[in-house]
Amino acid sequence: MLEKLKEKVLKANLELPKRGLVTYTWGNVSGIDREKGLFIIKPSGVEYDQMTAADMVVVDLDGEKVEGDLKPSSDTATHLYLYKNFEEIGGIVHTHSSWATSWAQAGKGIPAFGTTHADYFYGEIPCTRKMTAEEINGEYERDTGKVIVETFKNIDPTQRPGVLVNNHGPFSWGTDAENAVHNAVVMEEVAKMAYRAVNLNPALQEIDQTLLDKHFLRKHGKNAYYGQGK
Amino acid sequence: MLEKLKEKVLKANLELPKRGLVTYTWGNVSGIDREKGLFIIKPSGVEYDQMTAADMVVVDLDGEKVEGDLKPSSDTATHLYLYKNFEEIGGIVHTHSSWATSWAQAGKGIPAFGTTHADYFYGEIPCTRKMTAEEINGEYERDTGKVIVETFKNIDPTQRPGVLVNNHGPFSWGTDAENAVHNAVVMEEVAKMAYRAVNLNPALQEIDQTLLDKHFLRKHGKNAYYGQGK
Amino acid sequence: MLEKLKEKVLKANLELPKRGLVTYTWGNVSGIDREKGLFIIKPSGVEYDQMTAADMVVVDLDGEKVEGDLKPSSDTATHLYLYKNFEEIGGIVHTHSSWATSWAQAGKGIPAFGTTHADYFYGEIPCTRKMTAEEINGEYERDTGKVIVETFKNIDPTQRPGVLVNNHGPFSWGTDAENAVHNAVVMEEVAKMAYRAVNLNPALQEIDQTLLDKHFLRKHGKNAYYGQGK
Amino acid sequence: MLEKLKEKVLKANLELPKRGLVTYTWGNVSGIDREKGLFIIKPSGVEYDQMTAADMVVVDLDGEKVEGDLKPSSDTATHLYLYKNFEEIGGIVHTHSSWATSWAQAGKGIPAFGTTHADYFYGEIPCTRKMTAEEINGEYERDTGKVIVETFKNIDPTQRPGVLVNNHGPFSWGTDAENAVHNAVVMEEVAKMAYRAVNLNPALQEIDQTLLDKHFLRKHGKNAYYGQGK
Repeated sequence: MLEKLKEKVLKANLELPKRGLVTYTWGNVSGIDREKGLFIIKPSGVEYDQMTAADMVVVDLDGEKVEGDLKPSSDTATHLYLYKNFEEIGGIVHTHSSWATSWAQAGKGIPAFGTTHADYFYGEIPCTRKMTAEEINGEYERDTGKVIVETFKNIDPTQRPGVLVNNHGPFSWGTDAENAVHNAVVMEEVAKMAYRAVNLNPALQEIDQTLLDKHFLRKHGKNAYYGQGK
Repeated sequence: MLEKLKEKVLKANLELPKRGLVTYTWGNVSGIDREKGLFIIKPSGVEYDQMTAADMVVVDLDGEKVEGDLKPSSDTATHLYLYKNFEEIGGIVHTHSSWATSWAQAGKGIPAFGTTHADYFYGEIPCTRKMTAEEINGEYERDTGKVIVETFKNIDPTQRPGVLVNNHGPFSWGTDAENAVHNAVVMEEVAKMAYRAVNLNPALQEIDQTLLDKHFLRKHGKNAYYGQGK
Repeated sequence: MLEKLKEKVLKANLELPKRGLVTYTWGNVSGIDREKGLFIIKPSGVEYDQMTAADMVVVDLDGEKVEGDLKPSSDTATHLYLYKNFEEIGGIVHTHSSWATSWAQAGKGIPAFGTTHADYFYGEIPCTRKMTAEEINGEYERDTGKVIVETFKNIDPTQRPGVLVNNHGPFSWGTDAENAVHNAVVMEEVAKMAYRAVNLNPALQEIDQTLLDKHFLRKHGKNAYYGQGK
Repeated sequence: MLEKLKEKVLKANLELPKRGLVTYTWGNVSGIDREKGLFIIKPSGVEYDQMTAADMVVVDLDGEKVEGDLKPSSDTATHLYLYKNFEEIGGIVHTHSSWATSWAQAGKGIPAFGTTHADYFYGEIPCTRKMTAEEINGEYERDTGKVIVETFKNIDPTQRPGVLVNNHGPFSWGTDAENAVHNAVVMEEVAKMAYRAVNLNPALQEIDQTLLDKHFLRKHGKNAYYGQGK
């Protein structure tokens, strides 16, 4: 079932340690087949160097495991909630990558300080509000998704493919699992640069809207002209 | 004697340079066989790439060398003191890993700023008081253990498997040597993130008790649900 | 056409990921043949590990593609403007290397705090002014070149072979593509050191003119005596 | 001539890039044969991956090249001055390693904040005064040695085997070339930790004399008990 997607999701998961985004098993990637209404996610707590495509778990949009011998990631309910509410996305990544997590721990969004950021994220990468005791003690993983979606009430998730969960760490998404990992790598990189930039200049403001527009729209939308135009 | 344990302790020691926790010979791992009342520890000042299982030193709970051609680690008396006072632990690690050591030099515990921390440490990773001149000039290595145990007077060492020795560096422990190294890696990672988080937000407070409970208990104790439930 | 130069420009481009200066495709190197009035530049958005010499694009000094199946780098107009205005230079590099980009995001030039800097850059590595909305919405890439040249109104570009474009990132240049990459590596290194030095000493001043002269002129110009004098 | 020492000095030089202490050719190691009154030093500006033992240059204590096809390091006069004034040392290293150089650029010595430092350096690693215009424009490299020796007027160089040259970078030394490199690695490591410790606690004081004594003397002098006592 969905063997090709399993291979892609496995490959995207293996990209996390390769890119230095995870320590031990602290990360997970999923990818969805929208037509079939099924998504595939990494199993919980399994070492990256021992994972195979056959270990990937297939889950339906009721959150039920449809195939797989292992338990899915403990964050499955968050992925599920995001797939249901962000209908354009095809892949999701969660990590505790160190720079982005530091911003999340500080409870601050990552400001758009430069064109590197603007090339991928159309404005600040927001940080969610803190979760309430009720949310934490209730359906915690689902409500992690809920506070993310709440944060994007007035933001298009395809134009800002990432978020920091307060006190926790980054989630990112994309057109598919591979693209979601790409955005996770970029988020880590801009988190690092923003940390240093604000340290060099504590009064630093975000870049002008004109420059933000220019760079984001140079790479996204109908007037994009970066790359080979595939 | 204890050949399997020697292999495990060797392997755990070799994990230290592999994980970037040590420069030269600045670290040591031990593991204990509680039934036999013997522990095995790295020899003093030997290069990691030349160490073999046969170099591991067997020490009894009176601190006497029982087997081995080499002198045990100069920190052996600290390990001994911890094994005697923390009866549930099976392995101990000491390193001068750079982020954790920076906190130790600053004389500050590592606050629980995020869920990464809470997944492993049930609250701040404490920093000991400074040692007195008497302790330093007397049984220094044993009393390094003593100030650690004193620091844990009201803390369960299995719930906070690590400490910073003031002006010195981190010690961590676990169910066995491998698990103790795992905790040393986590401590270094959370030390790094906490440094950056507090730099981004100098007024930062620790996470709420509810979130701390949720994450620690999601992975530990009878209601844990992370991983494959082995 | 220009096969040797293509090989050199390819090699210089591949040096960028090897030296840790680029994430994904965030960088480009070009090299010029002044006699023929043609320069060679990396194609836009192509992965470094898939690039061949045949993918390099040949562009003339009117900015027209003369040879190549792929679109040239989206920054081609900036390279062109620099080649036309800095007549002594033979190669150009643009990256989003993280330390230099952090300074660019902060809108600050990199001060000459030490002899490492003085060995290569004869004074502060300047940061351009912010670009106007008109420049951004008009001929953006060309005018990126324009603000660089404006910044060097009173500076000899061969004595300070690099610049930070405000809110964006570093450009560097040199006698050829390889030398331009060398200067990009140095700029990243001095950006890192300067960040830390000013953090340690917020009131830090640039080095004295005498020491700046000594180090720059020890390596450059007719009285240079560093190296084997090739 | 001195073939064994050439091999050792070559090996010590190659350790610099392996340990991450140098970018390009920014470092040099020498070793001395006190009986013969000759020292061997890296040639100037030669790439590490192309260097052979035969490239090493033999210099006498008048600073004259005795053997070798290449020019010796441009810092040869500094090495010479140190060998003449620090009679117990057998090897010298100079690098622009990034953490130590940042302290040098800030014009500050590296305080002894922890036991890692105390294990190798018996107190602060001092920073020289700035050099005068006369010294810079005169016998610059020799006088770099002179300000180092001046800094050690009341310090035993064997107890503090390293220094920061103001606005420049670190020099370290040791019993031989290999040991000098070892001390350079340690200096870089303690420079990193001290930077972070003082950032975490700006009012941080150096460790107590008692702890400094304990750690330094545990590894050095007649009562040392660390290692296998070889």
